[in-house]
Amino acid sequence: MTSADRLIESTRELLWERGYVGTSPRAIQQRAGAGQGSMYHHFAGKPDLARAAIGRTAEELRATAEALLGAPGPALERVAAYLHRERDVLRGCPVGRLTQDPDVMADATLREPVRETFSWLAGRIAGVLREGRDRGELVPDLDPESTAATVVATLQGGYVLARAAGSAELFDRAVAGVLHLLTAYDTSTRREVGRDS
Amino acid sequence: MTSADRLIESTRELLWERGYVGTSPRAIQQRAGAGQGSMYHHFAGKPDLARAAIGRTAEELRATAEALLGAPGPALERVAAYLHRERDVLRGCPVGRLTQDPDVMADATLREPVRETFSWLAGRIAGVLREGRDRGELVPDLDPESTAATVVATLQGGYVLARAAGSAELFDRAVAGVLHLLTAYDTSTRREVGRDS
Repeated sequence: MTSADRLIESTRELLWERGYVGTSPRAIQQRAGAGQGSMYHHFAGKPDLARAAIGRTAEELRATAEALLGAPGPALERVAAYLHRERDVLRGCPVGRLTQDPDVMADATLREPVRETFSWLAGRIAGVLREGRDRGELVPDLDPESTAATVVATLQGGYVLARAAGSAELFDRAVAGVLHLLTAYDTSTRREVGRDS
Repeated sequence: MTSADRLIESTRELLWERGYVGTSPRAIQQRAGAGQGSMYHHFAGKPDLARAAIGRTAEELRATAEALLGAPGPALERVAAYLHRERDVLRGCPVGRLTQDPDVMADATLREPVRETFSWLAGRIAGVLREGRDRGELVPDLDPESTAATVVATLQGGYVLARAAGSAELFDRAVAGVLHLLTAYDTSTRREVGRDS
């Protein structure tokens, strides 16, 4: 790792552990094993480093999501794979948690990658659902945009519920719930759901 | 308001504005216009006051939810009324936000009312959906427990997305999404959704 990389990784860890206000330039330097000169050679200051750190976290989330959502296979299977991917549920979402850091939210340049990540994710999932609808896997009535927003909100809210309970149970149930609701829109299962009882 | 009430209300405001660690007994007394003697006459200390403050916030959320979920009318209309009730979306949920306060989460007696509120809410919504299913308003295939968890998670995640964007748009879309998904389970609309296209 270059010293710029070490500085970014240390900033990510400290932002996660202590939040923006609790992360001092000195703590970053110490954790990275880098001097003040090296830090200011690579970065204009703490906000600049935080932008790089948050940008990298956002990039990782996108890469992981894209690997699952962009895979071959039926649309709902790809959405389910993303919802089920191994997550450290009680730790929470590294991007979602930034919305609770008042200093990150107050700085437009720090908030932008957070906003952009969720906007991208909702759009990407909507695209997968649209594809599934166009291929006849999903019924025409499925609304890709609002469904995608519900999927992203279910995950982010699932983390909140898991944190409140100290248990992943409600997270898992919420994910199972949205996937079950979607079965009524799956052309391979809808007859059973829609059938008169 | 009694001075005990003023102390509780001041603690609620300060917990919201500054979090647990940023809320000093002195700041509580000042805002409440109460002396140290009065505070320690009514409460054993800051944790005790915080418990009372969090308990009251949780109680209010339950009362508001119960007024809508316990109203007469079809199950889905009651759930929709709860999802649509006027909310200060960008401000966030006063209970959900407590999950982001590390000091609240670290203290089992402060976390308990947060956990309990969400557990109650998911259970209450599941009860409304079960009632709707038993009355034939919803198809037998609807799963009340997982659907209720999805509804609660959609709200909490919607707040996260709204905060990230500085806009209620994704919150509104996520709420519309879960309600639209539910139309396939509504016996008065399912034929259109389930029909072969």
